Amino acid sequence: MRIVRALLFDVFGTCVDWRASIIQAAARFGLPAELADAWRAQYQPQLETVRNGSRPWVNLDVLHRIGLNRVLDDLDRQLSEADRAELTLAWHRLDPWPDVVEGLTRLKERYVIAPCSNGHIAQSVSLAKHAGLPWDAILGAEIAQAYKPDPAVYLKSVHALGLEPRDVCMVAAHNGDLFAAQALGLRTAFVARPTEHGPHQTTDLEPEGDYDVAATDFRRLAAWF
Amino acid sequence: MRIVRALLFDVFGTCVDWRASIIQAAARFGLPAELADAWRAQYQPQLETVRNGSRPWVNLDVLHRIGLNRVLDDLDRQLSEADRAELTLAWHRLDPWPDVVEGLTRLKERYVIAPCSNGHIAQSVSLAKHAGLPWDAILGAEIAQAYKPDPAVYLKSVHALGLEPRDVCMVAAHNGDLFAAQALGLRTAFVARPTEHGPHQTTDLEPEGDYDVAATDFRRLAAWF
Repeated sequence: MRIVRALLFDVFGTCVDWRASIIQAAARFGLPAELADAWRAQYQPQLETVRNGSRPWVNLDVLHRIGLNRVLDDLDRQLSEADRAELTLAWHRLDPWPDVVEGLTRLKERYVIAPCSNGHIAQSVSLAKHAGLPWDAILGAEIAQAYKPDPAVYLKSVHALGLEPRDVCMVAAHNGDLFAAQALGLRTAFVARPTEHGPHQTTDLEPEGDYDVAATDFRRLAAWF
Repeated sequence: MRIVRALLFDVFGTCVDWRASIIQAAARFGLPAELADAWRAQYQPQLETVRNGSRPWVNLDVLHRIGLNRVLDDLDRQLSEADRAELTLAWHRLDPWPDVVEGLTRLKERYVIAPCSNGHIAQSVSLAKHAGLPWDAILGAEIAQAYKPDPAVYLKSVHALGLEPRDVCMVAAHNGDLFAAQALGLRTAFVARPTEHGPHQTTDLEPEGDYDVAATDFRRLAAWF
């Protein structure tokens, strides 16, 4: 795999444990742990409004806030506007899985590393500062003005580095993300995150495609490269 | 100055000594030191073709190559296509001024730091790897599809960080860059680089505007913040 020049990373779930971090953030506002899963369940439907063209590209802060409003309605919970704004920013301060910083630091020595996330630049920068993610650049949704798995997100990220898809490996804990990248000619690495959705996770427990690499954490991922 | 959240940096001349690096690169192809100044003299005219709309936005590799072809013609020097391509990439491997990495590293502890350069993302990433510039993100010309001093370059860089101009300080060794940033509401810091253009430099020797900070190097710049 030394032939690649850069690695692009999914972030939510792959690099950071969004669920534990959002549960903690919700608790600070007196909100129950179930809010985290309910809020994340709003994620794909909200992205879809951009992907299907019914809404122009807006960043994840906007979409997370719309999702939060719906979840609070569903849970019949009250929260001030200021607290809703503050809680939405919890997505800027998610903790990394314990193997991530070491693995990225090792990979950065020999490769360009960057997020190819649906997070926007401001969110990705805040998250990197909080979690210690040593990115070389911030790529992904905002530079493409689109959301994964729209091909534009992968291709604009690859081309921003002056590279071709075959020069780049997409790293994700989600088979759907890797299928999309692989179809465009990127190399692919699956890193299992079997508790991303909690102890009863049923999806993305195993690599479901013919990827170049499958690893159980970022330290082992770095050893492949 | 602790009220700012981020610092944006000019790169060519402010962070890196392009002239010495290009002279070295030219020498490897048997080309004279005068090529560096002649090549850089092509820079603003080539940027202007994009700024005035006579050419769509293309990246600096393209513009540097056009400039190189002209300079080689002017100097009546031969160089193969492959060597021209390789020499153009010398702009991806420029050495930093000796105070830069230490200053940026200190500033990064408390602020978001990013280039707001006319360099494109691939060039900026390569340069950062080569020179050890610890950017949090790569902003500037490519995300704006425009060239400084077009206001879009400063404003899109600021907004990509989720900030307003007053939250951000532009750092440059060039008065023209700081005038443009200041007119948009950014805070400004001048760092003198009196040998950027060699021992007989006559421009940008002193701050010519009412900037928030003026410093003689990046260590002293960091002490202001």
